[in-house]
Amino acid sequence: MALALQAPQVPALLPVPSTVSWRDGRMPLDSTLTVAIVGHRDPRLERAVGRALRRLEARLVQPLPRAIGGEATAKLVVRVGNAGYAVPDLREDESYTLDVAGGRATLAATTVVGAIRGLETLLQLHEVRDGTHWLREATITDQPRFPWRGLLVDVGRHFHPPEVMRRILDGMASVKLNVLHWHLTEDQGFRVESRAFPKLHQLGSDGEFYTQDEIRALVAYAADRGIRVVPEFDMPGHTTAWFVGHPELASAPGPYAIERKWGVFKPTMDPTKESTWRLLDAFIGEMTTLFPDRSWHVGGDEVDPAQWNGSPTIQQWMAQRGLKDAHALQTAFNTRLFTLLAKHGRSPVGWDEILTPDLPREAVIQSWRGSNYLVDAAKQGRQAILSAPWYLDHIKTSGEMYLEDPLPAGHGLTPAQQALVLGGEACMWAEYVTAETVESRIFPRIGAIAERLWSPASVRDVPDLYRRLEVASRHMAEAGPTHEEHTARMVRRFASGEDAEFFTQLLDYARPRGFAGRGTNQLSPLTRVIDAARPDPWTEWRMVALAEAARSGDDEAGRMLMSQFGLMRAFPDMVRTMEGRHPLARDVIPVAGALGELGAIGEELLGHRMNGTSPSPARAAAIDSALTRLVGKTFGLLRPVGGEAVKRLR
Amino acid sequence: MALALQAPQVPALLPVPSTVSWRDGRMPLDSTLTVAIVGHRDPRLERAVGRALRRLEARLVQPLPRAIGGEATAKLVVRVGNAGYAVPDLREDESYTLDVAGGRATLAATTVVGAIRGLETLLQLHEVRDGTHWLREATITDQPRFPWRGLLVDVGRHFHPPEVMRRILDGMASVKLNVLHWHLTEDQGFRVESRAFPKLHQLGSDGEFYTQDEIRALVAYAADRGIRVVPEFDMPGHTTAWFVGHPELASAPGPYAIERKWGVFKPTMDPTKESTWRLLDAFIGEMTTLFPDRSWHVGGDEVDPAQWNGSPTIQQWMAQRGLKDAHALQTAFNTRLFTLLAKHGRSPVGWDEILTPDLPREAVIQSWRGSNYLVDAAKQGRQAILSAPWYLDHIKTSGEMYLEDPLPAGHGLTPAQQALVLGGEACMWAEYVTAETVESRIFPRIGAIAERLWSPASVRDVPDLYRRLEVASRHMAEAGPTHEEHTARMVRRFASGEDAEFFTQLLDYARPRGFAGRGTNQLSPLTRVIDAARPDPWTEWRMVALAEAARSGDDEAGRMLMSQFGLMRAFPDMVRTMEGRHPLARDVIPVAGALGELGAIGEELLGHRMNGTSPSPARAAAIDSALTRLVGKTFGLLRPVGGEAVKRLR
Repeated sequence: MALALQAPQVPALLPVPSTVSWRDGRMPLDSTLTVAIVGHRDPRLERAVGRALRRLEARLVQPLPRAIGGEATAKLVVRVGNAGYAVPDLREDESYTLDVAGGRATLAATTVVGAIRGLETLLQLHEVRDGTHWLREATITDQPRFPWRGLLVDVGRHFHPPEVMRRILDGMASVKLNVLHWHLTEDQGFRVESRAFPKLHQLGSDGEFYTQDEIRALVAYAADRGIRVVPEFDMPGHTTAWFVGHPELASAPGPYAIERKWGVFKPTMDPTKESTWRLLDAFIGEMTTLFPDRSWHVGGDEVDPAQWNGSPTIQQWMAQRGLKDAHALQTAFNTRLFTLLAKHGRSPVGWDEILTPDLPREAVIQSWRGSNYLVDAAKQGRQAILSAPWYLDHIKTSGEMYLEDPLPAGHGLTPAQQALVLGGEACMWAEYVTAETVESRIFPRIGAIAERLWSPASVRDVPDLYRRLEVASRHMAEAGPTHEEHTARMVRRFASGEDAEFFTQLLDYARPRGFAGRGTNQLSPLTRVIDAARPDPWTEWRMVALAEAARSGDDEAGRMLMSQFGLMRAFPDMVRTMEGRHPLARDVIPVAGALGELGAIGEELLGHRMNGTSPSPARAAAIDSALTRLVGKTFGLLRPVGGEAVKRLR
Repeated sequence: MALALQAPQVPALLPVPSTVSWRDGRMPLDSTLTVAIVGHRDPRLERAVGRALRRLEARLVQPLPRAIGGEATAKLVVRVGNAGYAVPDLREDESYTLDVAGGRATLAATTVVGAIRGLETLLQLHEVRDGTHWLREATITDQPRFPWRGLLVDVGRHFHPPEVMRRILDGMASVKLNVLHWHLTEDQGFRVESRAFPKLHQLGSDGEFYTQDEIRALVAYAADRGIRVVPEFDMPGHTTAWFVGHPELASAPGPYAIERKWGVFKPTMDPTKESTWRLLDAFIGEMTTLFPDRSWHVGGDEVDPAQWNGSPTIQQWMAQRGLKDAHALQTAFNTRLFTLLAKHGRSPVGWDEILTPDLPREAVIQSWRGSNYLVDAAKQGRQAILSAPWYLDHIKTSGEMYLEDPLPAGHGLTPAQQALVLGGEACMWAEYVTAETVESRIFPRIGAIAERLWSPASVRDVPDLYRRLEVASRHMAEAGPTHEEHTARMVRRFASGEDAEFFTQLLDYARPRGFAGRGTNQLSPLTRVIDAARPDPWTEWRMVALAEAARSGDDEAGRMLMSQFGLMRAFPDMVRTMEGRHPLARDVIPVAGALGELGAIGEELLGHRMNGTSPSPARAAAIDSALTRLVGKTFGLLRPVGGEAVKRLR
């Protein structure tokens, strides 16, 4: 049963635009729609308008025009000033205005990318009412709060093939994200074809790499959606896969093999050999033909000094130059690397470890160890982006991630320093995701982060976010990502019939534990119940909404909630029938127990509310103690859902 | 609610092997499995064993070995005689034996392809029982009944990108199909990159074509799965898209545009110009570098003589050569085309229209206008394959298609003539499928055809087919195809909340009408309820099984069936609440009415059965008349499901 709450009175826009004035009218949508591009016109804009019309057409199931005219009297007019940057750029003007009034829609933007952003908003104004398709009339002015709104996708640890990357880019565009940070090399894999040094991908990738044609096509696909592609070649650490084919790059003799475990490893590039620099020079030169963005991510995180400290020649080299420790050597490495990048027309981005006084002014610091590094960087006059709270593999809820802000209250930055905070990136690290599960870990939660980075800082209402995110999730899925099929698909693999029904039902009430704790490596199958679980099932916030309604005296909400608590209470019995029958019962026994307890407490508290009674003080204390033990805690590989609603009833 | 019937006592094998002897034992499966290849070993075999282990590993959620040894004492031993043909070949020996006994499994085959077939059977022996994973012990000997077991995929009318083609190939391999017949050119699209004549794909494809790299990769992907790729370049008709870039090939002056409508069109190649043959010579030469199979499909169907008859120069040319009509000219065209193919080392396959006395001996006739053309061809000493009853776009049920046979009872062929009947092909024509829906129209129904072409002719039990097909559908989905997600994904696009529940529920009881009758063209969105519908919902045969059980006195089955009839009876009321609310209600109003009537009759008849009573003669006659009007009939774009079960209760 869908616990549909009050139908929204206005279409769900996500991210929320800067200003919206709703009108009372609606513009009917059907195959008589006429479409025009006036002002600047180019193939990228035509493709973007065409894609939007195809999506709208699929909803209307009526053919819309293929011909896009130039008449300002068309029902849908797209008016653009200029092409914007030839390559998507940090400085792009992404603003637009959208005016739907009197049965006509006008989208106006300075640049093509602005129009691309506005087309997504236009698609969100579509609604079905009274048996008809409409665009809700409104006047919208919009521009992003931050210019860097990104997603890191780690393809080093697990490879995601081009079609998955295309779907990710489509989903990103649907929530107006504009940077794909492509983490292409890791200890566990080197994922780019190098024609200059083919042993890099041939020996470092298990055959799972992008050809240069595929990279060019993906970069073009991203550019068509106004998305920059920032490649990351993490160094000098996280480089084992480079050394399988080129052991001479390492600071200790080989041979090397692709790393299968997760963690921080010793293999590190040797910055003291000229041969290292000759290879990097040629390699960077080759890669700049594939990646046109000015930004180049150098990584720079988690350098284990063991190889440097253990090498007499490196120690001698350091001593000759007065470098007193590994940290100083990494700074020297970076300094030379940045010079090389400058030679190739690239400016560095790096993890917060690279922040040193002699960093180039145009560098960008990516804060991953904590938000304070972001503020520190800005205070030192450096550009910075936030990632620390947005590691998608930590499996926090959308609501939790939503309230994080690159400019948190009390940041103490001057306006000039604030301008150095460019935005942020969600990070999809791939220890525990495969090509099969990665979309489910990114979408729809990234919608919350996309809104934080685009919308005014004052937009912070979590229940309202969830109401809109459920609609936006379907829009993301329409654009490409398969996150809404993922649970059913995976459950179908490991169970059928009644067993499948049990797991499906339970996965509305359980979500994955966070990063780590699984004891798996790169070769482990990631096909357990935790992998089929959704990071943030809608059940949680729907139950919270029901609990709030029940507290306000809504008896129907109370009854619906009571039946959910009843189901939760039944899980322990249900799982007992699975034991001895299904091997994956072991994955859900602990969380089923927790759900049973939560369901019983929920029934008890809701019963009191509905009867106007209260638990005794002793019982109340016992309940509080149980809730502390249960809510948000991990049971095996899963965490129970529904506890937040129970807490609202205390 | 899943209406799970009796759990199968033995694993569901599909296609049924030639001989199976079940043992009582089971071989436990876990990460201690050791795997060896003994005898012939090559990379294709290693990749196939690796793929099977990865699929098994995903089910077990335990890592299985990456190292494949050579010890005959391993728990799973694959013993192969030789590599077989370098390019998958009609003459390939696909036989294998599989012996699972005493906790060890041995797969033996003459060729690598035989082992590939046996690995699919091995994966079907996996079962979950008593909380553990097992391989059921058995001795199996197996080989195909027919050597040509194919699927035609039309990418001319709608384009299916490479990732969809890969999933189709994976699904084909899982049911031991061995020919992809790739229908690459049509009036509506020319889908192959030609470097020799780039205007062909540049102007004839709307930008939707396969690059030569993509074709090479897909042909290699197919070969890895023991699947031949037979390209079809349909000519001299169905060629409008060629003429957009090369109007000089046509029999009437251009210009030409990509055809958007469906049907048979006038543009036809001009066989009287030497320039036509120079282009075809060079083009075929170029394509043979991409498609190594000896077979080359020339099409040859549905030639409209209008352009030939209307051209004075062509008429004069014909008169000079004594060709009395268009049919004679097509024969002359084919004769010269076959000579050209022979020069390039290719032998022709063609639609049954090409059957003429001077056809080369090695030619293969594909019967599409009726099974009689197949028998005729064999009687004339020609090789032939059956397609007439297996047009997947006609949306027949698996059970209907299953009982068709290339060698039907009473065929009257001599043993030598029978040997000319090579097998058959299912045909996935693409007027009414898109990349989004094509997998749902192919899978799982193609399993029934795959079994007809592989298994002994005596295997013809329809209820048993359905029991196994439901399991096999999950195996196909595991291998790649997304057919099991398709309905949910499409419903989610056009409906949410209670509306989505309504459509989802209804689509368990409704299936698409067959080919045609939609009035759409190439540019129409195919995103209506009919497109979200499954061609053969499990509901139909499950209800039939329940009806049979109820007739035999199974009261529990009767109660389950009664509740399904009750749901059917409620559909008209349910759809009435949708009218005026959802635009797609119009798609389901007619079928909801039919379902309501069927449900009411079902309740009445089942009530009589359970009470030991009968309808009056007058009422019985009225019911019979209603069933004639309702069962298997089309209501709008949909057909009701459940009627077969009602009929069993008469």
